[in-house]
Amino acid sequence: MDDRNQGSSSSTPHVVILGGGFGGLAAARGLAGTAARVSLIDRRNHHLFQPLLYQVATAGLSAPSIAAPLRQILRRQTQVTVLMDEAIDVDLAQRRVRLRSGDMAYDALIVATGATHAYFGHDDWEAHAPGLKTLDDAFTIRRRVLLAFERAEREDDPARRQAWLNFVVVGGGATGVELAGTLAELARHTLPREFRRADPRQANVLLVEAGPRLLPAFAPDLSEKARLQLRRLGVEIRLDTAVTAIDGSGVMLAATPYTARTVLWAAGVAASPLGRLLGAPVDRAGRVLVQPDLSLPGHPELFVIGDLASVTQENGQPVPGVAPAAKQMGRYVAEVLRARWQGTPLMRPFRYRDDGVLATIGRMAAVAQFGRIKLSGLLAWWVWLLAHVTFLIGFRNRLVVLLDWAWSYWTYQRHARIVTGSDAPSRASQPLPDDE
Amino acid sequence: MDDRNQGSSSSTPHVVILGGGFGGLAAARGLAGTAARVSLIDRRNHHLFQPLLYQVATAGLSAPSIAAPLRQILRRQTQVTVLMDEAIDVDLAQRRVRLRSGDMAYDALIVATGATHAYFGHDDWEAHAPGLKTLDDAFTIRRRVLLAFERAEREDDPARRQAWLNFVVVGGGATGVELAGTLAELARHTLPREFRRADPRQANVLLVEAGPRLLPAFAPDLSEKARLQLRRLGVEIRLDTAVTAIDGSGVMLAATPYTARTVLWAAGVAASPLGRLLGAPVDRAGRVLVQPDLSLPGHPELFVIGDLASVTQENGQPVPGVAPAAKQMGRYVAEVLRARWQGTPLMRPFRYRDDGVLATIGRMAAVAQFGRIKLSGLLAWWVWLLAHVTFLIGFRNRLVVLLDWAWSYWTYQRHARIVTGSDAPSRASQPLPDDE
Repeated sequence: MDDRNQGSSSSTPHVVILGGGFGGLAAARGLAGTAARVSLIDRRNHHLFQPLLYQVATAGLSAPSIAAPLRQILRRQTQVTVLMDEAIDVDLAQRRVRLRSGDMAYDALIVATGATHAYFGHDDWEAHAPGLKTLDDAFTIRRRVLLAFERAEREDDPARRQAWLNFVVVGGGATGVELAGTLAELARHTLPREFRRADPRQANVLLVEAGPRLLPAFAPDLSEKARLQLRRLGVEIRLDTAVTAIDGSGVMLAATPYTARTVLWAAGVAASPLGRLLGAPVDRAGRVLVQPDLSLPGHPELFVIGDLASVTQENGQPVPGVAPAAKQMGRYVAEVLRARWQGTPLMRPFRYRDDGVLATIGRMAAVAQFGRIKLSGLLAWWVWLLAHVTFLIGFRNRLVVLLDWAWSYWTYQRHARIVTGSDAPSRASQPLPDDE
Repeated sequence: MDDRNQGSSSSTPHVVILGGGFGGLAAARGLAGTAARVSLIDRRNHHLFQPLLYQVATAGLSAPSIAAPLRQILRRQTQVTVLMDEAIDVDLAQRRVRLRSGDMAYDALIVATGATHAYFGHDDWEAHAPGLKTLDDAFTIRRRVLLAFERAEREDDPARRQAWLNFVVVGGGATGVELAGTLAELARHTLPREFRRADPRQANVLLVEAGPRLLPAFAPDLSEKARLQLRRLGVEIRLDTAVTAIDGSGVMLAATPYTARTVLWAAGVAASPLGRLLGAPVDRAGRVLVQPDLSLPGHPELFVIGDLASVTQENGQPVPGVAPAAKQMGRYVAEVLRARWQGTPLMRPFRYRDDGVLATIGRMAAVAQFGRIKLSGLLAWWVWLLAHVTFLIGFRNRLVVLLDWAWSYWTYQRHARIVTGSDAPSRASQPLPDDE
């Protein structure tokens, strides 16, 4: 591939960015106006607004509302070439990335391939408890949740029906809290009038957290407010409770079995495997321990940003794995490169600016924390809504998302309640192994 | 399953409807206000507005905009129980339907399971030339079309790149014309500015029709207008041309090979296999030859409607396999049953009222025919838009569809350009057998 190999021989620097999430996209945008040639590589064709992914998983938003093609987002930045491909290795000495379709030389490399969900060594749990990182994950969860109610409607035996109406969410962070709250709303408000044999209001949503409180990234009093708001929505919460087993019939909570046909995983993440291939030290989750300027030790031309980077700031605080941190890292690295090309190296290290944290719980319920300011309930929910709609990429998406929310708000309906996936009809219609 | 077996023993009649398409849904609605207990069975959880399915396949609309859960549509009609299940056989003598989850007795049965695409004995073509009947079909087509442009962008060899930019649509009926016109627009207007190495304007869209003209359901002069409008959009049209082979490298047009990595099938349909199980005569496409009142010969309690029924009217004209005909049949059968229960049997046979035919070709181009009135171009396009938005189920869908179209119209963008499907990353990233 001729074009790709000219990277280091050309006079304009060639920057390769691996990953089109918040970090990679911010880096690409940060390089606008420079002489650099930029190649952005992603396995998928779209940037995903991950903070709203739970809305796709719970049928509130359609996928195109929270995803936009990377090449559409970057179409005006003609120095950027977007390629849908996957990096499988990096040759640090030769400064080449190995892609599935061939090799590509770089002058600077920005690795922003993020994280995926992890099962703490229990990979067999994945089949029974899907996690939520990609659109396809969201479709899997949506399909399982909607099919569970369909199966309950078909089931005459009360115990087996109830098993289809029991839902377990493992993990009390933001994703777990959002999924549990929305599931409870779905069962209590959206579905009841539509079923004749099963009663969706009999659904139990159980949120299990191994630690002592929900939302550990928030102040303890907000954790408690979130717990109370979730309780009010009908979610049952078990704190200090470890899940010790998951199979097709349910979960083990410490030594007590809990029957549930639907289990969702929101407990653990692990860094992209690319991190370990870079040869630098990684932390327990596989995140790369980078220099204060986010470069790899001994390789000032290679940067690791976003969820794949483990960064400890001067004040000793670790940078959290959140979207704003990834964006800030992307912009910072672009600035480091610009300064270097201008011959005036940037001396200040990366510093994370904490703009606050937000988590939604359900209809008009949320918690928010901005420095010392703490909000909960309706006001936090409005702030959450405003912030998320503002940061959504693309004007059209914002309009449609607002319209969907307004519609859901007034009607309690959720518009994306469709079961798709090539396995949907057979999964629904054929008895599961331990069923019937 | 106790509840299901009470069908014929209960004093209120139990009507079972198989299929929640236009026909089945119209029948269920037509039975509103009667004493009947109605069970509507569908393999999928949603009703699909099939006339706009090509818009999902070409990334113009998101799936939830054209699909709504059957139980949501029928939620206020409390006599109707919707079950997501699949009928695999019918016992005419015992009046029982065999579902995957068990048996169900009926007093009246309405079979409305429709049609699927057929490959005229060439089932091996399906892997290379997907058809368009379900949402999952639409996602498959969307994925292949979007990935073809992505592959072209990655490809350095001019001949192989062009193979990814060549698209063949087989079949010149409404679906084929709509797909070809929209593909040409996508390549010429939506994508060009976003690619750096491949030029989407180099894409060829070839529409192949075995018969002498496009849109055979329309008057010949409208077929010619459609051909001219498609030509103007950049579609190449081959009439009187049979496709004799399809594989991963392209198609054979009579004896001439044409290289194209993407082939779409819009040529043939076959009736649902349930039709042949009813024991009555079927036509060549497997459609059931029904009585003038749409009942099965010898079985006045069993009706076949929609695309699965072969109906010849008193005037000798066959009823076309279109959505309005299916709706009219559903309403008619509900009327037959009402009259029968009231002891005043309906004597008039089913008559199809032709409200006209419409086909869209592309941006502001369409053809329409209402009796003697024929329209083409911009005016037909406005009529088409109005008619389709009006008949879309659900107020919210109409608003969002209008918004999507207005947005597409002004920006030339198509908002649902996301590649999903569990095989998306691997398909894109791993070399195809005959590639590279």
